[in-house]
Amino acid sequence: MFEQARGFTEEKLSDEIKKSLTASARICRGNIIKMTTLAMSGHPGGSMSSLDIYLMLYMLTNIDSKNVRKDDRDRVIISHSHTSPGAYTSLATAGFFDIDDAIAGFRLAGSPFEGHVERSVPGIEWGTGNLGQGLAVGIGKALYARMSDQNFQTYVFMGDGELQKGQIGESRRIASKYKLSKLTAIVDYNKLQISGDISEVLHQNIAQEWKADGWQVIEIDGHDYDQIYNAFYKANHNNDAPILILANTVMGKGVSFMEDKHGFHGAPVKPDQLTDALAELGMENDLEKYQQMRTPEFAQQLAKKYPLKISDYPQVNKGENINYAADAKSDNRSAFGNALVSVADANVSNKDFHIGVFDCDLAGSVKTAGFAKKYSENFFQFGITEHSTATSVGSLSAENAIGIWADFGMFAVAETYNQARLSDINHANVKLFCTHCGINVGEDGMTHQSIDYFGLLNSTFGWKVITPADPNQTDKIVRHALATQGNFAVIMGRSVLPIITNADGTPYFGEGYEYRYGRMEQIRSGEKVALVTSGNMLFAAMEAYDKLKADGVNISLYSISDWSDLDADDIMKLSTYANVVTIEDHNIKTGLGTAIGDAMITSGNVTSMTKLGVKHFGSSGKPAELYKMLGMDADSIVGTIKELS
Amino acid sequence: MFEQARGFTEEKLSDEIKKSLTASARICRGNIIKMTTLAMSGHPGGSMSSLDIYLMLYMLTNIDSKNVRKDDRDRVIISHSHTSPGAYTSLATAGFFDIDDAIAGFRLAGSPFEGHVERSVPGIEWGTGNLGQGLAVGIGKALYARMSDQNFQTYVFMGDGELQKGQIGESRRIASKYKLSKLTAIVDYNKLQISGDISEVLHQNIAQEWKADGWQVIEIDGHDYDQIYNAFYKANHNNDAPILILANTVMGKGVSFMEDKHGFHGAPVKPDQLTDALAELGMENDLEKYQQMRTPEFAQQLAKKYPLKISDYPQVNKGENINYAADAKSDNRSAFGNALVSVADANVSNKDFHIGVFDCDLAGSVKTAGFAKKYSENFFQFGITEHSTATSVGSLSAENAIGIWADFGMFAVAETYNQARLSDINHANVKLFCTHCGINVGEDGMTHQSIDYFGLLNSTFGWKVITPADPNQTDKIVRHALATQGNFAVIMGRSVLPIITNADGTPYFGEGYEYRYGRMEQIRSGEKVALVTSGNMLFAAMEAYDKLKADGVNISLYSISDWSDLDADDIMKLSTYANVVTIEDHNIKTGLGTAIGDAMITSGNVTSMTKLGVKHFGSSGKPAELYKMLGMDADSIVGTIKELS
Repeated sequence: MFEQARGFTEEKLSDEIKKSLTASARICRGNIIKMTTLAMSGHPGGSMSSLDIYLMLYMLTNIDSKNVRKDDRDRVIISHSHTSPGAYTSLATAGFFDIDDAIAGFRLAGSPFEGHVERSVPGIEWGTGNLGQGLAVGIGKALYARMSDQNFQTYVFMGDGELQKGQIGESRRIASKYKLSKLTAIVDYNKLQISGDISEVLHQNIAQEWKADGWQVIEIDGHDYDQIYNAFYKANHNNDAPILILANTVMGKGVSFMEDKHGFHGAPVKPDQLTDALAELGMENDLEKYQQMRTPEFAQQLAKKYPLKISDYPQVNKGENINYAADAKSDNRSAFGNALVSVADANVSNKDFHIGVFDCDLAGSVKTAGFAKKYSENFFQFGITEHSTATSVGSLSAENAIGIWADFGMFAVAETYNQARLSDINHANVKLFCTHCGINVGEDGMTHQSIDYFGLLNSTFGWKVITPADPNQTDKIVRHALATQGNFAVIMGRSVLPIITNADGTPYFGEGYEYRYGRMEQIRSGEKVALVTSGNMLFAAMEAYDKLKADGVNISLYSISDWSDLDADDIMKLSTYANVVTIEDHNIKTGLGTAIGDAMITSGNVTSMTKLGVKHFGSSGKPAELYKMLGMDADSIVGTIKELS
Repeated sequence: MFEQARGFTEEKLSDEIKKSLTASARICRGNIIKMTTLAMSGHPGGSMSSLDIYLMLYMLTNIDSKNVRKDDRDRVIISHSHTSPGAYTSLATAGFFDIDDAIAGFRLAGSPFEGHVERSVPGIEWGTGNLGQGLAVGIGKALYARMSDQNFQTYVFMGDGELQKGQIGESRRIASKYKLSKLTAIVDYNKLQISGDISEVLHQNIAQEWKADGWQVIEIDGHDYDQIYNAFYKANHNNDAPILILANTVMGKGVSFMEDKHGFHGAPVKPDQLTDALAELGMENDLEKYQQMRTPEFAQQLAKKYPLKISDYPQVNKGENINYAADAKSDNRSAFGNALVSVADANVSNKDFHIGVFDCDLAGSVKTAGFAKKYSENFFQFGITEHSTATSVGSLSAENAIGIWADFGMFAVAETYNQARLSDINHANVKLFCTHCGINVGEDGMTHQSIDYFGLLNSTFGWKVITPADPNQTDKIVRHALATQGNFAVIMGRSVLPIITNADGTPYFGEGYEYRYGRMEQIRSGEKVALVTSGNMLFAAMEAYDKLKADGVNISLYSISDWSDLDADDIMKLSTYANVVTIEDHNIKTGLGTAIGDAMITSGNVTSMTKLGVKHFGSSGKPAELYKMLGMDADSIVGTIKELS
């Protein structure tokens, strides 16, 4: 009966379904209690207050347990992800997996049934262990529906405590701006958080705030299936402002001694109370059965039984390279803007190609204004809302779409590192184009110096950081990043810098150059000293090379654009020099020099290393003057290398 | 006349002062235009719309150009810090420095007059180049006033575009909760941001949102001195909810062709228009004079003339160490909670000792609940608002107060890295106590694994990361961090772990042990292999040591708690071993092993290095099982070391 009723096409909830939901709810609540007591940790209280809504979501929205990644499925996003037992028991009821697997595998090392939901569990769309993320994730999905001409609904299920988090306010305003009528937010309004009553911990006037931002608010009893159904029905037949369903619920609902007790937010029922709790729900205490199943081998079996299923990365036509002549005056960010439009042009006739470019009020500076003008429907101006933007672009990029965010490096990495980390955990494909990086940001000064992008993104596992050296290399790298699965950060400065050339004066990265991820480039050949650099600094390094050569010192000059995956052969090659000197526009403690040194010492191929780079926050001024002050200009490099010889 | 009128004691603005403000405003606007055109960058538009309010703030609040860090001064916080020319011209008018210095030194490499305001400029309280920070900074100041029984007023001056940022919503609710009647927010409501009309970029119903959160809202004409004065008067005689002054202004106010043009948000008047612009203000174009002053030597002189002045760090009585017996069963976070109360107790009779402990709904888990119970007035429950909290604690910690935030490492570092970076830039003294770090977080799983704290904080320059090994060492380290100037992050896991002992069974870090920042501890002596570890992992390393010894392999065992400042002699000592093996509960790419390798290779004291640690996000389960799965348990260490021999 549920399969036919999916999608809220009927105006009223049938008695038959209501009866079935009621029966399932009782069992699910018992299973929630069992799995948390079994794991001796977890969040039964909110799971039980959320349960009736979870059941409605997983039993009656347009999802299919046989085809969990069907492109036109409704998207159910869980924001209060510590209520995972509520989600797992409901998903199992809907046939997504065996309930015994979820109970016995809950919070078991190696099992996919983590304490906070992760994408490895069938039916889970997004891992959101950190609060306040879900609404922005939902925005990514709702925008994907719109750009791919699909009519699916996106539900975001949130806790009430997490509404305190600022990111939700950002998302609320964005959803309102884009009139995301197919986006529905539901709040499990049980009025308790870990520390007690939410209005005592940090009062919010929830309905008034959301209305002020243009939402429709429907307040319901979150344990009354008719009211839940009617609200969902309205959400499914809404062409107006997005809807918030404020669902009044009771923490620990269903077991008398748990109800309205904030102690059960994050603590399970004690083993000696378990039989009583289950008896209230008409269930028996069969915990021993599950205890016996709970072995490392069982966890391994679960991991195999439920492998992570993610969408294929879209096919991207990279278009034709744009080559910049040796005397061209451009900057890397403009080359990025040009390449972006070029790739969009190359794919415009492909109706399955979807692309979203996001901006936080800086399109002119980060050079997405050209794209915005030509492809206005694919350009999303989110205002000054970096956290929400970072999350939405991650969410979109996990669909059959290219998700792009261009911003100053300081906002796109430092301000939103945790969102990048969550995109890593969620196997997203964010394309981050970071401009104004390094001391090269110039006059904006200290607070704007993005000199930590690698130290940060290298602290995740999947992000790939790439620093192109000039507009020619930028062009190739932008195309590579857009066409390749995974999270990429392309790092650019602000300045116009000369084109990098071969000794004969022709562009090094121009026609004939093929970018291959991970490969070090030998720009000039010499002996004894290898000068290694990256990105914007290559030009200063070339200047140093020329000055040294004029003084009879012949060094080798290398450029490494791909810091995240240094090539073992390249490291071996560098170690054959008597001295390696690195120069980078990055905090010297956590940058390219450190990565090279780390690769050397752990591989056993060591040589003398000297690192040049940023040793303290700079000042506000012209980049050339700042580099000089910080000992990072050509003369400083020359001085360092001369001291070595 | 201004000095007598400071503090808004008179009910009405005198005609004399109004006349003087009007005259100053004309000159300031001209100087704003000059300095931005001279620097060929900067933000004249918002500086000119903010100018009349800036003048009121710096001419009539209780501040003193002769004593800029007077403890009972009013605090003026600039949140839209790109309007620095407005602040600089007004501060110069108020006698804080010579206007010619600010004009000629604006955005000049090495000069304190940065593009975004920094604390090195006399009269500037906080560097806020990143938007959305100011209100949380103001909360820190207002709480300081309250805890130190002072009656000063805190003003936070904000842009309108930045209200889009979520952090401001968090701060708004917190200010309302704590009834900060002496905190006044002012919005320069010129209705334009870089991309155009703020309500088109991302609409907000400003007044309604702030009222929903319990603020009083006063709407005024931000260019009418009487209206500004009256609003400030009301703010100074307010015992009610905090006040927002929504000041309607005109971007580029004062020069006809600049008014209401969003192009002048971030671009100066072109040199060929400068004479016309200045003529409208009755001023002459004397740019050449300033151009000639603008040399590197001049910048150096300015840096000397205006040295950074920060408050002395408070005197802290460290109290008596708490020693844990060899058979004690405790965890580091409990030892932190105990030490915190102990230090508070030791200083309670000192009326100049002020302390604020901040919580984001996790006091029970992070063990500040004991402090909260005993010192409820010094405990601030900010709810789930990590960004705002991180900023407020930084702000408070820069006053004569100890500012403490305890939270899960994932929230306190990963989620709020940029706020930590800004605390570094602002020379704050944040004491961050991070619990539930590492794979040791256990069942909470992937999203909660704080395994990047060092990779992140090491990407700033001032933060000191310390990882105590057991409750005894935690006790000493907590006292050290609380009593020492600077930003500290003390890293703790979740588990109860045995007390670390000497070979004779007595506690290693107990009575007689003196903690000295930066010193490596030799726990056991042996040959050939040095096993180096830190924090929670020391116990596993000791287990490995014992197993190896039983098998006839005698290694040395070292513990390093202070990752940020490795001792050169210690590195030299390690390099004398044939093999160094590191084991850490941290991302292996950016942790202790990498820091040691980096110190070795840059000092030229190298040996064979093998790093053990976290190679991918873990799962959700018991720490012991996770460590085993990830190759980080004692047996894995033993296996690695045996392979080396």
